[in-house]
Amino acid sequence: MDGQAAERAMRAAIAAASGAHGRTSPNPPVGAVITAPDGRVAGTGATAPPGGSHAEVLALRAAGERARGGTAFVTLEPCAHQGRTPPCTAALADAGVAAVHYAVADPNPLAAGGAEVLRANGIEVRGGLLAEEVRSGVLRAWLHRTRTGRPHVTWKYASTLDGRVAAADGTSRWISGERSRAEVHALRRTADAIVAGTGTVRVDDPWLTARDPDGGLAGRQPLRVVVGTGDLPPGARVLDDSAETIHLRTRDPGEVLDVLGGRGVVDVLLEGGPTVAGAFAAAGRIDRILAYLAPMLLGAGPVALGAAGVSTITGAHRWTVEEVTMSGDDVRIAAVPAATGA
Amino acid sequence: MDGQAAERAMRAAIAAASGAHGRTSPNPPVGAVITAPDGRVAGTGATAPPGGSHAEVLALRAAGERARGGTAFVTLEPCAHQGRTPPCTAALADAGVAAVHYAVADPNPLAAGGAEVLRANGIEVRGGLLAEEVRSGVLRAWLHRTRTGRPHVTWKYASTLDGRVAAADGTSRWISGERSRAEVHALRRTADAIVAGTGTVRVDDPWLTARDPDGGLAGRQPLRVVVGTGDLPPGARVLDDSAETIHLRTRDPGEVLDVLGGRGVVDVLLEGGPTVAGAFAAAGRIDRILAYLAPMLLGAGPVALGAAGVSTITGAHRWTVEEVTMSGDDVRIAAVPAATGA
Ligand SMILES: NC(=O)c1ccc[n+]([C@@H]2O[C@H](COP(=O)([O-])OP(=O)(O)OC[C@H]3O[C@@H](n4cnc5c(N)ncnc54)[C@H](OP(=O)(O)O)[C@@H]3O)[C@@H](O)[C@H]2O)c1
Ligand SMILES: NC(=O)c1ccc[n+]([C@@H]2O[C@H](COP(=O)([O-])OP(=O)(O)OC[C@H]3O[C@@H](n4cnc5c(N)ncnc54)[C@H](OP(=O)(O)O)[C@@H]3O)[C@@H](O)[C@H]2O)c1
Repeated sequence: MDGQAAERAMRAAIAAASGAHGRTSPNPPVGAVITAPDGRVAGTGATAPPGGSHAEVLALRAAGERARGGTAFVTLEPCAHQGRTPPCTAALADAGVAAVHYAVADPNPLAAGGAEVLRANGIEVRGGLLAEEVRSGVLRAWLHRTRTGRPHVTWKYASTLDGRVAAADGTSRWISGERSRAEVHALRRTADAIVAGTGTVRVDDPWLTARDPDGGLAGRQPLRVVVGTGDLPPGARVLDDSAETIHLRTRDPGEVLDVLGGRGVVDVLLEGGPTVAGAFAAAGRIDRILAYLAPMLLGAGPVALGAAGVSTITGAHRWTVEEVTMSGDDVRIAAVPAATGA
Repeated sequence: MDGQAAERAMRAAIAAASGAHGRTSPNPPVGAVITAPDGRVAGTGATAPPGGSHAEVLALRAAGERARGGTAFVTLEPCAHQGRTPPCTAALADAGVAAVHYAVADPNPLAAGGAEVLRANGIEVRGGLLAEEVRSGVLRAWLHRTRTGRPHVTWKYASTLDGRVAAADGTSRWISGERSRAEVHALRRTADAIVAGTGTVRVDDPWLTARDPDGGLAGRQPLRVVVGTGDLPPGARVLDDSAETIHLRTRDPGEVLDVLGGRGVVDVLLEGGPTVAGAFAAAGRIDRILAYLAPMLLGAGPVALGAAGVSTITGAHRWTVEEVTMSGDDVRIAAVPAATGA
């Protein structure tokens, strides 16, 4: 199989993983593609919700006998340990695959060693194919959680060019364009939890649900999390029954993440407002920024980020721009914390 | 001459025009390239400072006899009228060029008609080559002034991702990176005037001069314009002798532009701060935004745009993003007023 065909198969595995993203936590969203000896795709699989099968097993099941002598493409190094499910390395060896390509090595000491076990079974193994794409994409949050023990937090906001998230009178519908709003709903589908402050709930009364392009509720909803010591207004939309909601009566981002981590949350979407976002920034608890900048000027109104513990320019929180794209008429900026030297 | 060679010659003419940008107002910065009959470049010219020669005449002079039977590439339709200098159409005809390509038609009714005069002299004429590049680039401000009678205003600012132009304690050196600051000095060299408010002069005490990459003063300096009713601090750097400075004791952007227009200013660089930028935005007097967004968060401090007459989201000033690029580690966004339907 040539390099291009291998990349194509791995891309299909990534697509399968993306389809499972948001349904697998605390397990990683993994995708697998089995190609038959003639190079054709014989089976595809993705991590099932907790308690279900791993991607490799589902892909092998779909491939059946065509897996024998074929190749497996997996976004994460196959696990070698007996957990709730038998090790994937055994399933791959039993099915008689000749080769396994994976993107990212398993950072989890319990699950790692899969490559060696496969090699010991006479299977050709190669790691690193499209690794960067997987690492910064579908596995980003899970890798972060595995490394740090904390959920990964993406702070998403929509502001005007001059940084406002609402006008002087509090109106904010709609700052970002249709395309950006659709992207945010897709993003919510991949999140385990959406966090907002009591202020946003009081002012905007948002649903904080993931909706399909047709406006209907997506099949699976992230946990809605409201942060703040005050009460929620009785009829608040976050209290409806379209998704589970918890109210954490704290102002401490560390406590919020501890509670969420304890519930198996891996991927957090922080949707503000400015006060809560400022608190997370001050605590160093924002792992990625997704800013949707609408080509508007307001000249007044609340600014995207409130007090974040910085009083002078040399104390600014520093970031590295990862990607800038257009989202309809808006500019979408993705950034990650700047590397801080040695 | 094939299309590619023609484009190459016009690009050289644009480069010549860019070299003159900032030295020609109230005349347009025009570039001209003459190719000999064998297709080689025989002469290049650009508009000289007011009172001097036009680009075509200088290019013809450089080409000498090699212009005969050759082609002229000019960024603006050659003028047909007798002004301070004789019409360029006559110079081109006298030199015996066989063809003239220009980018943008002359919008000035007095100077227009050049193409027809040339054709009447048996010269092959084609307009529109790289017109969009010239129109949105080196001739943008001059075309705006010709169409509206007012100088063109570019509002340039450097802010953090959360829209701050300074930290809570007023410090702002440096928000944008080295690359962006160098770009701004190049931009100042092409401007006729730099405008800032008394607030910025009091807080930042800037020089508002154009500097070369080595830090030395550029050969030609834009007019420094301070706007506001209050006095300037006696030792303010804008009062040094590195460039001319005027203090306009008004808060009315219209009055500022009238005074500047009367002095022959075509291209204005508005460098803020927030109060003056807000006043210009409210008056509809910003024709282009150049935002340098540094990947930083401050969470406090003044925001790029102050009061601009907007109180609710439907009243927001709307823009169209023209270009997004990276400027070193910063995101550079260029925007123009959104087209406002019929
Ligand atoms: N465009 C966007 O992307 C976007 C997104 C969200 C919100 N917004 C806008 O943001 C505005 C609301 O701003 P906001 O700042 O009030 O909303 P917020 O950050 O959602 O809520 C603020 C509240 O959260 C609680 N809180 C939690 N942690 C805190 C901490 N560490 N320090 C202080 N308070 C903490 C406090 O309430 P307790 O008193 O209950 O503790 C505080 O009043 C609205 O205008 C809304 O439209 C815009
Ligand atoms: N990062 C950047 O790109 C950038 C650029 C410039 C400034 N800044 C920052 O901006 C801050 C200064 O902000 P600023 O708003 O005070 O500066 P400013 O806009 O330069 O000056 C404000 C002053 O201009 C006068 N003014 C002129 N037109 C006015 C109008 N229509 N309405 C009201 N006042 C008018 C007023 O002074 P009179 O009382 O004299 O009339 C007013 O106090 C500093 O922290 C500076 O660092 C940042």
